[in-house]
Amino acid sequence: MGFFAKDIKSMDDLFVHTLQDIYYAEKKIAKALPDMVKKASNAELKKGFETHLGETQNHIARVEEVFRMHGAQAKAVECPAIDGIIEEAEEIAGDVDDPRVLDAALIAAGQAVEHYEMTRYGTLVAWAKELGRDDCAKVLQQNLDEEKATDQKLTKLAVGTVNMQAAE
Amino acid sequence: MGFFAKDIKSMDDLFVHTLQDIYYAEKKIAKALPDMVKKASNAELKKGFETHLGETQNHIARVEEVFRMHGAQAKAVECPAIDGIIEEAEEIAGDVDDPRVLDAALIAAGQAVEHYEMTRYGTLVAWAKELGRDDCAKVLQQNLDEEKATDQKLTKLAVGTVNMQAAE
Repeated sequence: MGFFAKDIKSMDDLFVHTLQDIYYAEKKIAKALPDMVKKASNAELKKGFETHLGETQNHIARVEEVFRMHGAQAKAVECPAIDGIIEEAEEIAGDVDDPRVLDAALIAAGQAVEHYEMTRYGTLVAWAKELGRDDCAKVLQQNLDEEKATDQKLTKLAVGTVNMQAAE
Repeated sequence: MGFFAKDIKSMDDLFVHTLQDIYYAEKKIAKALPDMVKKASNAELKKGFETHLGETQNHIARVEEVFRMHGAQAKAVECPAIDGIIEEAEEIAGDVDDPRVLDAALIAAGQAVEHYEMTRYGTLVAWAKELGRDDCAKVLQQNLDEEKATDQKLTKLAVGTVNMQAAE
């Protein structure tokens, strides 16, 4: 955000700008996920990241659909938040050798990503409804639901993975 | 994170490192909140940010308590995630003139901050329990509960603020 100073004049502008923000974030996540798949040791975690990569491609398509429905051009604006979250994930992953500790770190990183997406989609759904665009809200809600489901799966895996570690 | 390459060898190291990460984040948030209080127009939102500033000081004290309980030095490590989230909040706030649109943007920014903290405290609580440190988990859970409550308050305010806008 922030490329165009003082260009956000209405709630509609803010909605489109936040859509551009999550569009950038989803594309960045799609680029980061293959590395997370590669680094994960636990088979279920690896599979979970792979599945989420497919979902992320669908999320990008849905965001593009909302741009179209809203008559706005599909455009990404830089999002320092997701850049920071992914930078942190990459840094921490580089600091860990033990595969099970690395899995725990990857799960935590994945959950930080999911929570960022959940907050942005939550905001977008609320704003779409208030702007009288229930059709856009419905599409965005599908992404929100899938992000929440992924976060819950990661929570379950977190307990399982750390338990293995503690059981040694 | 990432200052000390390959220094995270155990779940305990990862726990302490993530504690250092949230310690940095809480301190950064405490610095950013006064500006959010200043920029907010809606009285309830302004008061909400003020209240959360007080809570954030308590959160810092509780994280320091957990460091002590765990026999680790209270130290902050750079956290690109919160840096990015706050940078984005400042950028977007600079792009908006209309006070009600600015309030909506500030609420969304506040929720992004809360979600980051929720995911980190959620992880820390789970790891503390798995490491057999229910005492640390209990203290961290208090921070988690307050972050969740703040996020819920912001959700309620979001609807009210945007409704005002839509009613014009």
